[in-house]
Amino acid sequence: MTKNPSPHIWLYDTTLRDGTQREGLSISTEDKLRIAHRLDQLGIPFIEGGWPGANPKDVQFFWQLQEDPLKLSQIVAFCSTRRPHTHAADEPMLQDILAAGSSWVTIFGKSWDLHVTTGLKTTLEENLAMIRDTIEFFRSQGRRVIYDAEHWFDGYKHNRDYALQTLKAAMAAGAEWLVLCDTNGGTLPHEVSQIVQDVVKVTRDWGRINSKLDQSGQVVSEEVEKSTNSLPNTQYPIPNLPFPIPQIGIHTHNDSDMAVANALAAVMAGATMVQGTINGYGERCGNANLCSLIPNLQLKLGYSCITEHQLGQLAEASRFVSEVVNLAPDEHAPFVGRSAFAHKGGIHVSAVERNPLTYEHIQPEQVGNRRRIVISEQSGISNVLAKARTFGIELDKQTPEAKQILQRLKELESEGYQFEAAEASFALLMYEALGGRQQFFEVKGFQVHCDLVEGKEMTNALATVKVAVNGKNILEAAEGNGPVAALDAALRKALVNFYPQLATFELTDYKVRILDGHTGTSAKTRALVESGNGYQRWTTVGVSPNILAASYQAVVEGLEYGLLLHAQAEAAVKASG
Amino acid sequence: MTKNPSPHIWLYDTTLRDGTQREGLSISTEDKLRIAHRLDQLGIPFIEGGWPGANPKDVQFFWQLQEDPLKLSQIVAFCSTRRPHTHAADEPMLQDILAAGSSWVTIFGKSWDLHVTTGLKTTLEENLAMIRDTIEFFRSQGRRVIYDAEHWFDGYKHNRDYALQTLKAAMAAGAEWLVLCDTNGGTLPHEVSQIVQDVVKVTRDWGRINSKLDQSGQVVSEEVEKSTNSLPNTQYPIPNLPFPIPQIGIHTHNDSDMAVANALAAVMAGATMVQGTINGYGERCGNANLCSLIPNLQLKLGYSCITEHQLGQLAEASRFVSEVVNLAPDEHAPFVGRSAFAHKGGIHVSAVERNPLTYEHIQPEQVGNRRRIVISEQSGISNVLAKARTFGIELDKQTPEAKQILQRLKELESEGYQFEAAEASFALLMYEALGGRQQFFEVKGFQVHCDLVEGKEMTNALATVKVAVNGKNILEAAEGNGPVAALDAALRKALVNFYPQLATFELTDYKVRILDGHTGTSAKTRALVESGNGYQRWTTVGVSPNILAASYQAVVEGLEYGLLLHAQAEAAVKASG
Repeated sequence: MTKNPSPHIWLYDTTLRDGTQREGLSISTEDKLRIAHRLDQLGIPFIEGGWPGANPKDVQFFWQLQEDPLKLSQIVAFCSTRRPHTHAADEPMLQDILAAGSSWVTIFGKSWDLHVTTGLKTTLEENLAMIRDTIEFFRSQGRRVIYDAEHWFDGYKHNRDYALQTLKAAMAAGAEWLVLCDTNGGTLPHEVSQIVQDVVKVTRDWGRINSKLDQSGQVVSEEVEKSTNSLPNTQYPIPNLPFPIPQIGIHTHNDSDMAVANALAAVMAGATMVQGTINGYGERCGNANLCSLIPNLQLKLGYSCITEHQLGQLAEASRFVSEVVNLAPDEHAPFVGRSAFAHKGGIHVSAVERNPLTYEHIQPEQVGNRRRIVISEQSGISNVLAKARTFGIELDKQTPEAKQILQRLKELESEGYQFEAAEASFALLMYEALGGRQQFFEVKGFQVHCDLVEGKEMTNALATVKVAVNGKNILEAAEGNGPVAALDAALRKALVNFYPQLATFELTDYKVRILDGHTGTSAKTRALVESGNGYQRWTTVGVSPNILAASYQAVVEGLEYGLLLHAQAEAAVKASG
Repeated sequence: MTKNPSPHIWLYDTTLRDGTQREGLSISTEDKLRIAHRLDQLGIPFIEGGWPGANPKDVQFFWQLQEDPLKLSQIVAFCSTRRPHTHAADEPMLQDILAAGSSWVTIFGKSWDLHVTTGLKTTLEENLAMIRDTIEFFRSQGRRVIYDAEHWFDGYKHNRDYALQTLKAAMAAGAEWLVLCDTNGGTLPHEVSQIVQDVVKVTRDWGRINSKLDQSGQVVSEEVEKSTNSLPNTQYPIPNLPFPIPQIGIHTHNDSDMAVANALAAVMAGATMVQGTINGYGERCGNANLCSLIPNLQLKLGYSCITEHQLGQLAEASRFVSEVVNLAPDEHAPFVGRSAFAHKGGIHVSAVERNPLTYEHIQPEQVGNRRRIVISEQSGISNVLAKARTFGIELDKQTPEAKQILQRLKELESEGYQFEAAEASFALLMYEALGGRQQFFEVKGFQVHCDLVEGKEMTNALATVKVAVNGKNILEAAEGNGPVAALDAALRKALVNFYPQLATFELTDYKVRILDGHTGTSAKTRALVESGNGYQRWTTVGVSPNILAASYQAVVEGLEYGLLLHAQAEAAVKASG
């Protein structure tokens, strides 16, 4: 599928700037630093860090980055052109950018004549001067400049000549990349393709003059070498572009569900830089998703972007970023989602077990993902058997046990259970059906008490549990800073004398989902609890109209499954000894 | 932007079949019926209902639909071709489809030679016979047939000649639509475009023979009229196609993030049917999203699919389906997501207030969506002012109150509050800053007690609350089937004598999100509570490490905001009276 040789496409990440415009996303400076370093590892050559000055957090971010610099990536500061009728050198806004200290600066300016006259309320000529002056100012300070042509496609469609003049002004002033932005996300791929082809052709023609054009389009032959400053401290082969041939970039939004398709169309039409965000985060419907773009460019179209090893970390990087920004990952995201290579339908499962090519367009490992067989009510018996095998249990399709497991599964799912994410609870269900569920302890009941007096700090929740081990009842109580933490603490306290390994267990994640939200607080609740023992993690599920009972059930099964793992490991040691 | 005249594109929804293959989605027969009727209202001409026989629920669904039929849409039964070396008429699987009683049947068959020999383990000739026999069988029973060519694009790339033979067999047997399926979702738009163009040309050439071709490609001139059975009870102008010119359809998956782009590319290359699902639900990364496809086809490319009025219900239909299948809606979905026309960045907000065209590619109302100004930590003061205006509060940018609101907002967001979805809590915060927050009651504290004895049904949770109205303390207790329902009941009981309007309030939705999930059950919890009074709904937020305290806080603010709305309404009545 790949072409030879592989042309290079320059990735430009704007997760930390455009990505943070996403509704529901907010991020600390500390977290921005963590993400920047992760993108550096992933091999993204340009990382847009924010707009220093417009946001105090962004200033802090650029300063802290100077103390803890990126290894290979270039950090880029973002800002607009100067305001109408000012001097670039006198604009505090541009001084803030200089103070941020990045080698690269991205300047955005207006391409659409209507925006200039009605938005900026200035003349078309002044807008060209604003673009030119701002870029020249940064060039004179030794900075390298990327020019973002805002509303490019709308501007081009309304007034191609004026739109091209803005690019010419940016190029003449020393911008090395001209990035065509589909700011409103309304453009379709066939339009992007045709317009980018035109721009590539026109700018190449300008480039052939091989000299600088002044504001009125006159040729001035100077300062050619200024743009060829080489970059310190980079091992990325960022090209020192022969001056008046700027490269073309693309920046797309997903309002028409076309962000990735539009970016690909632009690259195929000659663009050499692609701007996007991890997980497609961004204003409104988001930006072009780098997690889809990179594998499409590299695995399908034969361009080179990052190393094979880095591509193999893509799914992990995607999950890392969603965790840091505290948004639930999109399980169904192309390439990197947990479900991207999950097989649920019975026909698919048996086919994919014979030959993965039948229902997988790439090998999941290429992007650091993995194949999964999903257990659900829709499952045929073949899914249940395949799943059982992943727990080391060989089941025969014809046995009553296999049918009983499927039956029980369907009953529980109709009550609101879901085992897709709770594989440990599914394993316990299987052991039960096979008569091999070991009873480590018996649950007798619990009490939770919690009170709050206004004006005082929250008092802890108090939980009492009653369990039996080997026929002996144990009553224990514990406090926690919430009722579930208190229940968990009380259970461990009650059991740890019998099972000292419980001391190494911990709850690592806890999620609550309300089913049938429309019936309000008396709706059913599903709690998922992830537990760990330091080297393994497992997830269990509980369902009840009572949020505490659902959580309790999941916590209890989490402890039980941990004890089971421990017993299995001990048995294996004994057997081998 | 639109072309004249508008060619018609036939929409084919497979939410109820392919959509249910999505991991995490399960659906009852009752819910399938609700969705089918909603799609009927939306104007979708073809609705694939499932595979009767493969799934007992699907049989039930088709039978119930006969008692409560759709108004205009055609319901379609889905199944595979007969198995190798059997007679179609003797296959119980095909009899189940007949029994389902639909006028239309979609048959899927193999296009890829490799799948035939290694998957089906039969000969290439037998596969052609399977396609032909199965379709002829349904045609002989008076059914109209759509043929889904599975793995079309992979098959075509590996062996174009054989792939085309499978289409020819389907066409010759009487299929009216040949649907090209990108089953693995691995194809890119430029490939779809080129391949569909080829297929359209080839099948048109076949069509010109204007007669039936037998399995070896020989011309047989009979049974032409058989396929022109007109459909009873439909007002949709479903074409009675002049027989041997089948129409081309497209069925795409989103594994490369290209499902919608590929479907558009196919339509522009000559396909006249588009298969997809509401919200893009489907196996792995999903199917082509009809909520993106329809507005792109209709508003951008000038095709006609549904009426303008129906298009104006698209966002509502999308939310309806996500609610029925009990999945959180994708707030960032193109066109129909809650954030699709939401403006968060300060620059965008002031620009969009001047001229919506600047940051919106279509009018939100065209698809039944609306513009929103988002309040967040990132907000400039202009967002806060714009938001205040939606609550009827005029603030001056320079006042200390405006700055104080912004400051308080930022503090609370850093603690984990989020006001984007909790506008009522934001309004209370504004009234407080302006000194106009009316104190209907004072919260003194609560106690919750909950116990469970194993083997018994869950006992109810018991809540005790202490509130003060006009300086008088009230202590009340109530039970509920969970602790939050109990708290809510106790609060109403305590306050209803003072505020009888509380009797009309209800909790309509309740959501819990764990922040910092990695610290397990002692993580911070954010609760969102939606309340209603029969004609208005509002959402409030609470945050605490204790899930009960967070929920309590949101419930309390929900009651307070409801009382405030009531007071404002009464004041308005008085003023006008």
